[in-house]
Amino acid sequence: MSSVVIALLMFVGTAHAEDGHALWMRYVPVEPALAATYRAQLSDIVAPDTTPTQRAARAELERGLAGLLGKAPRMHDEGAEQYAVVLGTPHASALLAPLRREVASLGKDGYLLKRTQLDGRSVLVVAAQRDIGVLYGVFHLLRLLQTGAPLDALDVRESPRVQLRVLDHWDNLDGHVERGYAGRSLWDWQSLPEWKDPRYTDYARANASLGINGTVLNNVNASAWSLAPDYLDKAAALAEVFRPYGIRVYLSARFSAPMELGGLKTADPLDPGVRRWWRDKVNEIYARIPDFGGFLVKANSEGQPGPQDCGRSHADGANLLADALAPHGGVVMWRAFVYAHDVPADRATQAHTEFVGLDGTFHPNVIVQVKNGPIDFQPREPFHPLFGAMPHTPLMMEFQLTKEYLGFATHLVYLGPLFEEVLRSDTYARGHGSTVASVVDGSLEGHALTGMAGVANIGNDRTWTGSHFDQANWYAFGRLAWNPGQSARDIAADWAAMTFSPDPAVVQPIVTMMMTSREAAVNYMTPLGLHHLMARGHHYGPGPWVDGGPRPDWTSVYYHRADRNGIGFDRTARGSNAVAQYVPELAAQYGDVTKVPESLLLWFHHVPWDHRMASGRTLWNELVTRYSLGVQQVQAMQEEWAHLQPTGAASASTSTSPEVERGSAPLASPIDPQRHAEITAFLRIQHREAQWWRDASIAYFQSINGLPLPAGEAPPPHPLSYYQSLQFPSAPGDGR
Amino acid sequence: MSSVVIALLMFVGTAHAEDGHALWMRYVPVEPALAATYRAQLSDIVAPDTTPTQRAARAELERGLAGLLGKAPRMHDEGAEQYAVVLGTPHASALLAPLRREVASLGKDGYLLKRTQLDGRSVLVVAAQRDIGVLYGVFHLLRLLQTGAPLDALDVRESPRVQLRVLDHWDNLDGHVERGYAGRSLWDWQSLPEWKDPRYTDYARANASLGINGTVLNNVNASAWSLAPDYLDKAAALAEVFRPYGIRVYLSARFSAPMELGGLKTADPLDPGVRRWWRDKVNEIYARIPDFGGFLVKANSEGQPGPQDCGRSHADGANLLADALAPHGGVVMWRAFVYAHDVPADRATQAHTEFVGLDGTFHPNVIVQVKNGPIDFQPREPFHPLFGAMPHTPLMMEFQLTKEYLGFATHLVYLGPLFEEVLRSDTYARGHGSTVASVVDGSLEGHALTGMAGVANIGNDRTWTGSHFDQANWYAFGRLAWNPGQSARDIAADWAAMTFSPDPAVVQPIVTMMMTSREAAVNYMTPLGLHHLMARGHHYGPGPWVDGGPRPDWTSVYYHRADRNGIGFDRTARGSNAVAQYVPELAAQYGDVTKVPESLLLWFHHVPWDHRMASGRTLWNELVTRYSLGVQQVQAMQEEWAHLQPTGAASASTSTSPEVERGSAPLASPIDPQRHAEITAFLRIQHREAQWWRDASIAYFQSINGLPLPAGEAPPPHPLSYYQSLQFPSAPGDGR
Repeated sequence: MSSVVIALLMFVGTAHAEDGHALWMRYVPVEPALAATYRAQLSDIVAPDTTPTQRAARAELERGLAGLLGKAPRMHDEGAEQYAVVLGTPHASALLAPLRREVASLGKDGYLLKRTQLDGRSVLVVAAQRDIGVLYGVFHLLRLLQTGAPLDALDVRESPRVQLRVLDHWDNLDGHVERGYAGRSLWDWQSLPEWKDPRYTDYARANASLGINGTVLNNVNASAWSLAPDYLDKAAALAEVFRPYGIRVYLSARFSAPMELGGLKTADPLDPGVRRWWRDKVNEIYARIPDFGGFLVKANSEGQPGPQDCGRSHADGANLLADALAPHGGVVMWRAFVYAHDVPADRATQAHTEFVGLDGTFHPNVIVQVKNGPIDFQPREPFHPLFGAMPHTPLMMEFQLTKEYLGFATHLVYLGPLFEEVLRSDTYARGHGSTVASVVDGSLEGHALTGMAGVANIGNDRTWTGSHFDQANWYAFGRLAWNPGQSARDIAADWAAMTFSPDPAVVQPIVTMMMTSREAAVNYMTPLGLHHLMARGHHYGPGPWVDGGPRPDWTSVYYHRADRNGIGFDRTARGSNAVAQYVPELAAQYGDVTKVPESLLLWFHHVPWDHRMASGRTLWNELVTRYSLGVQQVQAMQEEWAHLQPTGAASASTSTSPEVERGSAPLASPIDPQRHAEITAFLRIQHREAQWWRDASIAYFQSINGLPLPAGEAPPPHPLSYYQSLQFPSAPGDGR
Repeated sequence: MSSVVIALLMFVGTAHAEDGHALWMRYVPVEPALAATYRAQLSDIVAPDTTPTQRAARAELERGLAGLLGKAPRMHDEGAEQYAVVLGTPHASALLAPLRREVASLGKDGYLLKRTQLDGRSVLVVAAQRDIGVLYGVFHLLRLLQTGAPLDALDVRESPRVQLRVLDHWDNLDGHVERGYAGRSLWDWQSLPEWKDPRYTDYARANASLGINGTVLNNVNASAWSLAPDYLDKAAALAEVFRPYGIRVYLSARFSAPMELGGLKTADPLDPGVRRWWRDKVNEIYARIPDFGGFLVKANSEGQPGPQDCGRSHADGANLLADALAPHGGVVMWRAFVYAHDVPADRATQAHTEFVGLDGTFHPNVIVQVKNGPIDFQPREPFHPLFGAMPHTPLMMEFQLTKEYLGFATHLVYLGPLFEEVLRSDTYARGHGSTVASVVDGSLEGHALTGMAGVANIGNDRTWTGSHFDQANWYAFGRLAWNPGQSARDIAADWAAMTFSPDPAVVQPIVTMMMTSREAAVNYMTPLGLHHLMARGHHYGPGPWVDGGPRPDWTSVYYHRADRNGIGFDRTARGSNAVAQYVPELAAQYGDVTKVPESLLLWFHHVPWDHRMASGRTLWNELVTRYSLGVQQVQAMQEEWAHLQPTGAASASTSTSPEVERGSAPLASPIDPQRHAEITAFLRIQHREAQWWRDASIAYFQSINGLPLPAGEAPPPHPLSYYQSLQFPSAPGDGR
């Protein structure tokens, strides 16, 4: 193929693809000199071709190399004369047999990616115990190419540190995604099982590229209907698409399903009829989906039914389902996100209070799923006190990728630093170094059953995630689920290189933006440990004045407790004593206003407005400064992004029609005009809304404390009543 | 460019584009010999380039010719040496000045597309009074190329016969589309006005290609919020995108908005405060959207507020808004789809009863929007008796493109024949030949204000319409709104050629499928004039047993009135006397069981089960035969489609990832594997559901009449109770 043709294909490919749909698997041409080097190293490939997963690995490699190097590799079966790369499993490949022991040490999902001597020649090997490991290895190899890494002395040994790497979809059967900001559900239940949309395959590819190996199809606020035969047929069709990519299907189970679907009079976990119903239902599921993963359950929380409705415990409920699943190898992911209806105590303490006493009573195939913090996915929370507090129970991390409390899809907020902060937090459960990550990966307490869940930010939007940058949160979750010890910054750099361009002039500013973004959101929304100050219901925009309603712990004033004298939630021994749920050394630190990190000050303490901060400012002045800083940080992101503007981008937003546009030359800038324009517009929204958060918050708190603004701080342009009057009856993602 | 390169681009273009997103504007290469001819005729083009609409026309032509002919034309300004095509308006172009009178005769939206002598040479001219006419002409020219028409002796003079050619979106502000089966709303209110998604432009292009010149952005079950300032800013951003394409934005107005938004105590149309509020609101809208089209209103219907709440008439209500809009040139489209809450009479008669007496009382900028039939978008209805009955009032046609009652998006039902049947119906209002089309286009009564609305089937699905074939319903609506006299079959042939391939071996079978499809749906759902027998609420699937509930005319038994002795709604003088709403000659025909068309038999008559039909069969046997015929017709469509299967299509559904797939050769068949596979799956769903309709309907009616099935007819595989037990709590498009 001539270079002209390749150049044309490159251009055409680029012109078509850059609506974000290709995610980080764009496979656009690498820089020519590098491409030549890679081509020499990757021209002839021996790869098996008999199982669906093998075919997926082979196809991905062909697709990837064709795009990246402008030339598809020659694929061979074992026994070929010429080869430079060998894919496979030692037990099936004679060539790879010598690597048997080395590969075995990497476990069932691990892989080896290295340059070695085989049969007297130097080859690149992608080897694993199972086909799925080979597929993971192929994606790793493609990532190296996408980021411009050298392949000369490769010696990569990878195994996941977490067993269940799962996306939780809060998708309702009617297509509405609760807290979804990326369009409707990806699952088109109406055309399933007959039509398997090609997007399902691309979803599986994207997940497999990160090592994600499970997906919970439906909302934790579950409809019993998702367990009805018709929906099981539809779920089975999805499972069939996902299977070659190593992804198991799970379902959220409604605890009262035996009553709603089965017509039973009770859902009591100790009732023999209920036990039989679940056993039969599980058998019915496995008849359709032999590798069904199991159930996720939200019980006795926010109005959902659960075992406590019959006077039973969470363990009774979880074990009921676990016993039905056990013969098939399925698991129960039982959520610890519970808080009592009658609000007996600080909501932050309730999950711990309810669950810690159940430690050791769960059956072996139950894993308790705990949100990262004790409230609910706020911009910043301390780590959840259950981590480290239930040594005899596998605990699974639940992160939220969809940005319910972080500006929806239109704010650029990279969650990598949030995930990293939580995972690296030290629980001190077994002394210094007992990080949350070590609880989650099972190493601290020696659990084999481990997991990490991400509440998906995926919908039928063309970008998948509602914005280009939100793809990074899916990506970072997957990478951290594989290895919770990775660096958020390194992951951001990989993602930026794959998603935009490996050119350091692109990667560096994008990583800077990403790494600033979460702290910016904390600053303009809820600085210094403030939390849960968003508008009611839909959670869109500021609502520090939210009061009244059905329960105090659904208001803002419950959490900030601001009055003339000060602000913050006293969770010390003088207050709710939530600090006591942490180990003593942490309780002492958090409970001491002079030792608590300022980033969590108002989470744990009620503090006078004139409290002196490390900066020398009073608390009030510091608070205002932080709000303003958040807005300035967004401005800085806008400026950074503006520098990446492609030349001639003015007409970028006029059309994405897929036809080839002749007459316009490929652009010099490595960022394409459409994505640049869209991100520019989204940053403009973020800036407007960051300003709104700052102004509304300052107007409100000033109405409480009557204090003047620090010098140089602009007063809010509207009176408080204006901010309070704003209504958004159609904000997206509402629970309904 | 070498032919290899062109071939590659063709392949790549095809590989990328065939997810249906390009609609009928695919612009894929025409057959090489024809392309050479066209290239010779279209190589050098003189076209103006100063207004946004001129730029849109020029860009479309460049895009289209580049795709179709593999080569973009050379574009010139007036004064160029060489040119073969001239675009423009005679008043701005010296070259076209001689055509001034000819062009003027075509009206403000018309265009001339002809080969003529200009300045001593033979050129192809696309000329119009206004830029928008030129754009329409460009799309016409591209259609000729897409369908393989010769350009040698072109002499096309086109003017629209209908003034307002409008899509009605039943889109809620939260993104839910009522009766939408194509995903969420296309309008992303959350990211507007900052982000103007390129899809908005493509939407405008698609509409302009058909001559559609208006869009009502929000649901007729309207939220007052759509008139709030923030939403007006967002609507203005859309209007800005649409303006170059000649599309005006309209809004559905909630009649009680002065109370909900304005805090007034009343919405009484005669109240001075209310009148002032609307005047101010309209001024506020025009300040943002200078070419705002006006309001669509559903009032006093199905729970919507309206003037009758204050004891005023529909005319009072319409005139209130019309007076506010008149200074700006806006119009009110006031819906006649009303039926009283206390169900005093046959629902089919109520709109006529309420509106006919108001004839002549509407202000000049009001047009009354009437559904095609007197009930509600059923698979078949007689034309609405208001057509021809309000000579002093402009009446606008309302068709439904979204298939609320015709199988949602998964059934292939081409609505062209339905539209055609209605438009060609003779009202006899001024004697023979007084067709509904002549009422709608104003020619019968001499109205200048004319319109046709289509309830859009568009959402954020990649296909736009939820399925590939539903694009044809958008297309056919647009073509018929331009000229209601066109043939549904011809339109289908154009669409099939543009959407799949101009190859007659493709067009012919697809047109056959399309032209059968509506009658097939009538047969398997509601043959012989039956109507409104769908399941309650969501309208998904059969529900002839639906009874009880809030009102009789929301049940099925109200409409079919089946008992041991017979079936059908007696609308003769012995019954509801709905026939009397038609002119006497029609009333006599419809009212006489021996003269009524069998296709409307049970619409107008209650008939014994042993009534003898034209076929010689009893009514019962004929009914069963029709149900079965419907299923067989779907099977025939499946077989027709199977013949179009591309070779090597097996792997079509594995991925749509936009990367170039090497190693696989371009396919021989002109239908691409992805669309073929998707349509095959959808036909399978349609077949399953057609069978379900047949079986459930037969089981139900047999339970009423106790009659045996005709020989050779298979009994339903389940008892009636099974069909009655099926529940679909999450069927799409529900009203909520």
